[in-house]
Amino acid sequence: MKRHPRVTASEAAHRYALRVYYEDTDAGGVVYHANYLRFAERARTEAMRGAGASHAAMTQETGLIFVVCRAEVDYLAPAHVDDSLIVLTRPHSVRAAQVVIEQSIVRADAPDRALAELRIDLACIRAADGRPARIPPRWRDALAGTSGE
Amino acid sequence: MKRHPRVTASEAAHRYALRVYYEDTDAGGVVYHANYLRFAERARTEAMRGAGASHAAMTQETGLIFVVCRAEVDYLAPAHVDDSLIVLTRPHSVRAAQVVIEQSIVRADAPDRALAELRIDLACIRAADGRPARIPPRWRDALAGTSGE
Amino acid sequence: MKRHPRVTASEAAHRYALRVYYEDTDAGGVVYHANYLRFAERARTEAMRGAGASHAAMTQETGLIFVVCRAEVDYLAPAHVDDSLIVLTRPHSVRAAQVVIEQSIVRADAPDRALAELRIDLACIRAADGRPARIPPRWRDALAGTSGE
Amino acid sequence: MKRHPRVTASEAAHRYALRVYYEDTDAGGVVYHANYLRFAERARTEAMRGAGASHAAMTQETGLIFVVCRAEVDYLAPAHVDDSLIVLTRPHSVRAAQVVIEQSIVRADAPDRALAELRIDLACIRAADGRPARIPPRWRDALAGTSGE
Repeated sequence: MKRHPRVTASEAAHRYALRVYYEDTDAGGVVYHANYLRFAERARTEAMRGAGASHAAMTQETGLIFVVCRAEVDYLAPAHVDDSLIVLTRPHSVRAAQVVIEQSIVRADAPDRALAELRIDLACIRAADGRPARIPPRWRDALAGTSGE
Repeated sequence: MKRHPRVTASEAAHRYALRVYYEDTDAGGVVYHANYLRFAERARTEAMRGAGASHAAMTQETGLIFVVCRAEVDYLAPAHVDDSLIVLTRPHSVRAAQVVIEQSIVRADAPDRALAELRIDLACIRAADGRPARIPPRWRDALAGTSGE
Repeated sequence: MKRHPRVTASEAAHRYALRVYYEDTDAGGVVYHANYLRFAERARTEAMRGAGASHAAMTQETGLIFVVCRAEVDYLAPAHVDDSLIVLTRPHSVRAAQVVIEQSIVRADAPDRALAELRIDLACIRAADGRPARIPPRWRDALAGTSGE
Repeated sequence: MKRHPRVTASEAAHRYALRVYYEDTDAGGVVYHANYLRFAERARTEAMRGAGASHAAMTQETGLIFVVCRAEVDYLAPAHVDDSLIVLTRPHSVRAAQVVIEQSIVRADAPDRALAELRIDLACIRAADGRPARIPPRWRDALAGTSGE
């Protein structure tokens, strides 16, 4: 099950550090599987903020939000309470109204081994009515600028 | 630590049954402490619905919502994955703009022993601006009708 | 985005009903995307119990647990607070040490439209050390018996 | 409802910064009430680590854990998505087998106004059987050293 992260800590990837707390774990002694999606969303939020184009600003200025329309997660190795994790985030493709993000979650002390790999499809929609919308240029450029394309 | 539930399964108390799943537990092997507040809120929601005055209807018809303004929880014994629990709910006092609810959480197969006791203070506010508001008569009567007063 | 559920309420599918509470939603006004994985796990747990082969019994009797090793979720339409949902669950394939489950989430009052479609790969492992293990016959048969194969 | 934090950012209090994400909020547009307990636990964990006596080390070295046996939370003002919060943590009293912690949650840009005040009673127990245990000296001293006593 040992696998190198698909998204590595290259220049192109955003790094988000987090600590695992009891709230994140389950009675199996490991991080509950749904919570990787939460970690990944925290990292995407900070990646956008770090690129100077925060999600909150997009919502306030344009009334648009990104919503997850598809998620794929491969769980490769468990994480435990008190682990120090890093989420590596990289846009895979940026289209008019949709973005595909690739993310890898690794332990800070073993960054060459992926605990989880995610591929998240985001759609840009109008918060008011949920209709699809084009990603505003500022956010599109920020996302594309950090992608490998 | 064995303590009889303050709210017992008398006629006056609403009973809400739930099952504990992995999502509710933590690496200590027991239900994570914050999740008792979630169980309690599910039970309050169903108690109001059962009294013919649902929270969702209040929000839709009047623009008002109940928010938790104070919570006290005593944790007396742990709950485990797959446990079948019952939340007993009884309004303690109903005032113009505030309600105090008492709740006990027990195991279905040992209802004389409280796992947790809660006292929740709810304030009625306007969803639009958060200002305090009087509880509409229909909801006030429904809550008072199920209280021990 | 309207799509018929891949898993329909046929005889072969297990039906699990749940209500959406505030805890399940986010500030976008809809169910938070990670929480569909929680709903799905509740349903899988009850589907196994309903087939007479509960997950908890497997862990107690054999020391084995199922863990999610891959998840795919398509988010097709949002769910809102107070919605009454049904999770339809059907094993897609049952192998020696792995099971693939297909699940659809629908609204109880509009069961012909999927809100979300999930495909969950479960691995059977030893709880003590995480090593892969064969699914015990009783659980294998129970899972296979409810599959479409 | 404006109230100065009971625990202020004095030398004696530990400061833990966090960001509010969508996962933390509910359809009311604000942080879900149960999640303040999660924020508070993250802060207590880091306060112990910062005092050189981490909870994880206590569990590994002594088999003991702290569990919440009582929680009181006053909710004074809401927090919103993308808010930058600070949790101020100070032990109120340290006894042989129990600790009482006081915590205030404030916005980083308005630290003189408490959003929530918490008082958390922790019991030291043996992880294996849940029996009460004396807090080991190293952890007791670390906790007492940061208390106002």
